[in-house]
Amino acid sequence: MQTRFILINTSHAGNVGAAARAMKTMGFTDLVLVAPRWANVLRREETIQRASGALDVLKNARIVDTLDEALEGITHLCATAMTPRDFGPPTATPREHFELLLNKERLTHIPRGLEADLAYKNEILPETSELVQAAVAAPERGMGFLFGCERFGMRNEDVYRCHVALSIPSDPQFGSLNLGAAVQVIAYEWRLALGAFPVQSATLEPVLADAAQVAGMLGHLEQSLQAIGFLDPQAPKKLMPRLNQLFNRAGVTQEEVHILRGIAKAMLQNVARPEALTPATALVKG
Amino acid sequence: MQTRFILINTSHAGNVGAAARAMKTMGFTDLVLVAPRWANVLRREETIQRASGALDVLKNARIVDTLDEALEGITHLCATAMTPRDFGPPTATPREHFELLLNKERLTHIPRGLEADLAYKNEILPETSELVQAAVAAPERGMGFLFGCERFGMRNEDVYRCHVALSIPSDPQFGSLNLGAAVQVIAYEWRLALGAFPVQSATLEPVLADAAQVAGMLGHLEQSLQAIGFLDPQAPKKLMPRLNQLFNRAGVTQEEVHILRGIAKAMLQNVARPEALTPATALVKG
Repeated sequence: MQTRFILINTSHAGNVGAAARAMKTMGFTDLVLVAPRWANVLRREETIQRASGALDVLKNARIVDTLDEALEGITHLCATAMTPRDFGPPTATPREHFELLLNKERLTHIPRGLEADLAYKNEILPETSELVQAAVAAPERGMGFLFGCERFGMRNEDVYRCHVALSIPSDPQFGSLNLGAAVQVIAYEWRLALGAFPVQSATLEPVLADAAQVAGMLGHLEQSLQAIGFLDPQAPKKLMPRLNQLFNRAGVTQEEVHILRGIAKAMLQNVARPEALTPATALVKG
Repeated sequence: MQTRFILINTSHAGNVGAAARAMKTMGFTDLVLVAPRWANVLRREETIQRASGALDVLKNARIVDTLDEALEGITHLCATAMTPRDFGPPTATPREHFELLLNKERLTHIPRGLEADLAYKNEILPETSELVQAAVAAPERGMGFLFGCERFGMRNEDVYRCHVALSIPSDPQFGSLNLGAAVQVIAYEWRLALGAFPVQSATLEPVLADAAQVAGMLGHLEQSLQAIGFLDPQAPKKLMPRLNQLFNRAGVTQEEVHILRGIAKAMLQNVARPEALTPATALVKG
């Protein structure tokens, strides 16, 4: 779905850069500034610095004089506003509003036969939800997020034009997010609602040891703990079951089983060479 | 649950201020800086400016030399790290990890009888989830979020100590969030997972008109549309059902019914005074 971020009367250049970066991290690039404080805000040093590489967003950003000029193609307008008003659109959290909106879009715009089919597929095969997303992302619909100026937020007349007032659920005692941070949260929630970017595992997927491998390792360990005099076979208490529980909770991997067996082996070898024993352990052994 | 944000080797003072503000908007106040670039970072002008009132967070923040000194009371460590590594804790998105973690905590730490009771209550009465939160918020558990330095992220040896590597699902082509923005997203997700701050409606809750009131208003409107010559009773087409559908979609309120009836009334009154008709409308009427 076409998505536009509209900043109205922004006064800090750094926030424009931060907004551009926040948008781009979530894959959004359409930025419009309505009557910013600085006419050259897109080229100011602080803007470029805080954009930290999101220069294409700045380059393609438009500056306009009035909100009207920012709304072409946008069919759903979200205010971001905390101030209570006597009148205005309903208030919702981003997460609940996006969920409702996309459900409604899906139910409204997918042909009836396909809809049941998709619901079925989503239940059975969650990965086919791309079809739903494609249906939702019909080109005629556009989402606009409006952000007011840093000190005074949004003007009533701008809020009145919106379909909803999004409220990020922050501490009522200290509720005002930085403008760039608010853009980040909204962009993040909207991206997750539309379908998140996949997260790549930073490491190789570990292979878990099966219960037989864990049991084999525990047997090896038991032998070595007896050899070093820590485990008394006459009074084993619950030492081995306790270790078993610890490794179960951890979900021990095959690689870790090798490491632990290596430790057990080294303990046994060490004990086998009496010269390696300290007098104290020799005493215990004796 | 005790929650601590730990910034390691932070180099930009502004980011420390932004992190403090982001934390405080989500109700978190425990900030520790490990070996920041500037020893006086908590008192620098840029820090205070970007903190924008979160001065208590800065005042109570601790600066320590090593990560070890930052970990007292913290039992669960989350790295925030994007760089692929050959080895390390599992990668997860914040949302899925927090959900799993809190479910696990709940299942592990609530007495069995109470657990079933709570699950039942949550299903029936979502607002009683405070009980679950209280159980989860047992004082002996602590959550720590670790953030590396702006340019190089987290060092391997710090990541290795963590239980999980959280990855914000950003655009793989431009995935690096500003440090303050990342703190904002993590704080936001963690707050929502723990139980969000309530969002206050910015306006009074409107009272929807019932179907009888809508029908009465439509009758009034029909009469006036006939009077002004827009609706031809001989060929009404689907004008009134179309307007009915429009108002149904909008979910018209009682106040709006009053307004619409007022408009209908004014149209009727206007027609009753022939001098108010323009020649053109008089012609249509004729």
